[in-house]
Amino acid sequence: MNEFEVIARISGRLGERPREVVVPIGDDCAVVRLGEKDWVIAADMLVYGHHFKKWASPEDVGYKAVAVNASDVAAMGALPRFVLASGGGREAETTLRCMEGVLEACEEFGIYPLGGDTTSADALTVDVSILGELEETPVLRSGARVGDVLAVTGELGASAAGFLALEDGRRSPERLVRKHLRPEPRVAAGRLAARLGVHAMIDLSDGLASDVRHICERSGVGCRLDIGSLPVSEDVREFVRSLGKDPEVLAATGGEDYELLISAPEHLVDALDTESDVPVTVIGEVVEEGVTFLRNGEYAEELSGWDHFRRS
Amino acid sequence: MNEFEVIARISGRLGERPREVVVPIGDDCAVVRLGEKDWVIAADMLVYGHHFKKWASPEDVGYKAVAVNASDVAAMGALPRFVLASGGGREAETTLRCMEGVLEACEEFGIYPLGGDTTSADALTVDVSILGELEETPVLRSGARVGDVLAVTGELGASAAGFLALEDGRRSPERLVRKHLRPEPRVAAGRLAARLGVHAMIDLSDGLASDVRHICERSGVGCRLDIGSLPVSEDVREFVRSLGKDPEVLAATGGEDYELLISAPEHLVDALDTESDVPVTVIGEVVEEGVTFLRNGEYAEELSGWDHFRRS
Repeated sequence: MNEFEVIARISGRLGERPREVVVPIGDDCAVVRLGEKDWVIAADMLVYGHHFKKWASPEDVGYKAVAVNASDVAAMGALPRFVLASGGGREAETTLRCMEGVLEACEEFGIYPLGGDTTSADALTVDVSILGELEETPVLRSGARVGDVLAVTGELGASAAGFLALEDGRRSPERLVRKHLRPEPRVAAGRLAARLGVHAMIDLSDGLASDVRHICERSGVGCRLDIGSLPVSEDVREFVRSLGKDPEVLAATGGEDYELLISAPEHLVDALDTESDVPVTVIGEVVEEGVTFLRNGEYAEELSGWDHFRRS
Repeated sequence: MNEFEVIARISGRLGERPREVVVPIGDDCAVVRLGEKDWVIAADMLVYGHHFKKWASPEDVGYKAVAVNASDVAAMGALPRFVLASGGGREAETTLRCMEGVLEACEEFGIYPLGGDTTSADALTVDVSILGELEETPVLRSGARVGDVLAVTGELGASAAGFLALEDGRRSPERLVRKHLRPEPRVAAGRLAARLGVHAMIDLSDGLASDVRHICERSGVGCRLDIGSLPVSEDVREFVRSLGKDPEVLAATGGEDYELLISAPEHLVDALDTESDVPVTVIGEVVEEGVTFLRNGEYAEELSGWDHFRRS
């Protein structure tokens, strides 16, 4: 299914934009001005069999639903504040355990739950809506400029590697499995990036090769990315190679990293790397047009035909 | 499943309440003060096989998900303003049609959609979160006082009768089927009730016999309701009798009316009835304790053992 088409079709049918709406549907979050302050708002749904399988506990699912929403808020440079959580499974116990995961994540990220709806469903499903508070101008996908560098927080590929392990029936490598089940939204780094005034930001959910296109399309620019420079940790490389796969291609396409992709002048990225609690790595640059993937300076054949619509 | 238990368990685990939270989880909506204004926030999820079956089109489901959320907002005396909608079905086309229903309801009720998440799911599922704007003090479930009368807007039992028709494979009586598939949230009446200063309000989703207990429990009072005085229209009576069922018992227990149940001094109910675009009918009174159902003045045996937990 192609959710971008759905969003486009919806956007084409929206009525007049109320005065409170600063940023409508189409970015990581919408932005509404309520009172004297801007708030970001978004939702993400996880469904058994589509977003997770029996390797995820109900607690993991509830936790992750909050974490991925917090990541959308982080990508606007905002602070996650409130959530609503709806959902449930076949048994009341499953629903309860999922909501316990929601609460655990709320405690972890300092979010207050305002309610939601518990229900029965044959397939465990959870939808979280989030409200985040903005203290700076929101960082949109549309601000990238030629001359910016592209950088990512943390590391890439660990979650996708954990997913491969889980799909293979393993619970290890533990660190990678945990990266997939309990992602860490980059809230502090996102707020710092907004404060520093970076030009554009998005969280990496579909995967770098897909998400970077959102920035380019929205900003009317292109980019050159070198997958040889992606921050891929040694345990990821080792495990992915043991499966006969290419760690750098996985890091570029695997998705669910929930790291931030940032477009900014190099000195701002340097400042962010210095001040942030997570490393920030330059992985490419913004150019006039075209999305080009290199590997250590050479054209990366493996990614030339890669298109996020293929995933639909 | 017992969602009240889940809510209670969640409430027991909430952290410190942030200063913005005026009313926490547990009423029709939570209330948050953002800027100089109070906003209500809530979510409701509909799942195929649990909340609807194949007799509902995807558009109906999307529409109804917005309508039932708008009803929660109405029950606080607020104006529905913004929604997020998440969900989907097995086919992209089903998802699109459901989102078209969401948009149709948004147009109908003057609500602006801020986004959400489209996904694949084996069973069509939609979760809507809503933000409503308060211009008056929110009307809670907890304000009922001895001496108040209890009154309902509109009519009862029509939606439950429509459900019985649909379950029986019929598309008629059309008016009743439509009442079930496309409920009309009582937004204008709810705002007017808040402006008049009614004491307590709830929307009738589980059914009068269940929902009135929420008002009584929250307010620390009891009530006497006469089901002989429920506003049940002639077409509902006729159709329900043709199925060999009791129209007044159905009206008291059937649920999904999405009318407002109001506790207020009689003169306020009179004023509401006069000024509102829907009729408002007195159906009982608030007393010290106990929930008693009468029928035309006699103790109503049929409802004596009725307990909303039975529905779990």
